[in-house]
Amino acid sequence: MESAHAIDMPESKKANGSGKGKAAVGAPAAAVATTKATPHPRGGWKKGVAIFDFVLRLAAIGAALGATATMGTADEILPFFTQFFQFEAQYDDFEVFMFFVIANGLVSAYLVLSLPFSILCIVRPHAVGPRLLLLIGDTVMMALTIGAAAAAASVVYLAHSGNPNANWLPICQQFGDFCQSTSSAVVASLIAAALLLILIVLSAFALRRRT
Amino acid sequence: MESAHAIDMPESKKANGSGKGKAAVGAPAAAVATTKATPHPRGGWKKGVAIFDFVLRLAAIGAALGATATMGTADEILPFFTQFFQFEAQYDDFEVFMFFVIANGLVSAYLVLSLPFSILCIVRPHAVGPRLLLLIGDTVMMALTIGAAAAAASVVYLAHSGNPNANWLPICQQFGDFCQSTSSAVVASLIAAALLLILIVLSAFALRRRT
Repeated sequence: MESAHAIDMPESKKANGSGKGKAAVGAPAAAVATTKATPHPRGGWKKGVAIFDFVLRLAAIGAALGATATMGTADEILPFFTQFFQFEAQYDDFEVFMFFVIANGLVSAYLVLSLPFSILCIVRPHAVGPRLLLLIGDTVMMALTIGAAAAAASVVYLAHSGNPNANWLPICQQFGDFCQSTSSAVVASLIAAALLLILIVLSAFALRRRT
Repeated sequence: MESAHAIDMPESKKANGSGKGKAAVGAPAAAVATTKATPHPRGGWKKGVAIFDFVLRLAAIGAALGATATMGTADEILPFFTQFFQFEAQYDDFEVFMFFVIANGLVSAYLVLSLPFSILCIVRPHAVGPRLLLLIGDTVMMALTIGAAAAAASVVYLAHSGNPNANWLPICQQFGDFCQSTSSAVVASLIAAALLLILIVLSAFALRRRT
């Protein structure tokens, strides 16, 4: 019945196109052949994007987990101590670094949980729902990652060079190893954020309506 | 014709219902009515999103400009001085605050330049190009805004409460007004970032293929 409409009125092709797609889901008739004919070149392109998305996601998991672990284990005890206390620098001496560890842990968890959706996008390259979900989730998580990395970076910068105007002295002369691990963690987190940015742009391209 | 169909197939009532409504509005020929029937509600929905996008963009310009101005004019001179120097706190005493001013200025400029594209999306709600461009630009600028705001926030936090482990003393007791302006600037910048986040999600919804 629906296809009869398409023949009667060629200018309403678009409206019936979606109707045909619906028919293809249900019925194994001749209509199936036509629906499969057009999406195939598109589907190949989108499948490639989806696979690339999956690989980038794995890399981002590595970067975020690395950042979390490096920052979480950053710990240095100086080889001298007074009678009353030891000189020790740990990540939880700085609230910002604690936020960094929590944020990067959250991002790692999100990225692991997003892998099934990414696989779903590989299996069904035209599915809009999971891709939109991934795009929104990635955006929020990129904001979290960048925020944590920038906040930690500004403290690492202060630790390196201090601020004479506020009388904050650099501590990296004493705690060199600690500074090095925190700097590496910030760099790893920024890499994770950059990967998430690429993921967002890829999802946006895959979402657009034409091709 | 149309109404006869509606009687023939009660399960396609919805599709024909909208067609009928349009037929009453415009055209003498039944075929024309059906072609106009489907795109119109979509266009209306997308146009609404585009107008909302424009309004949010104006708000984000306000927030970003406010952040830039507040931080750029943050300046406090203490009412006492020694023979050799005056006690003064300015935004350019902290490299992070200089980065903040530059980043927020850039974001404001980008947002102003993006207004024509937003208007283009209102005029042509189905155009994919400008919307994709806006989505990618918004993502990059959101990353910049969040980074600047988070870095400045961590220094503002240190200025407020210091860090006893690193022997960094709080400076807000002396420079209360300076701290207040920098805190406001950070909040304004975070508002701009949140607006950009909403803009990204809106663009993603408007980009997806099916209405």
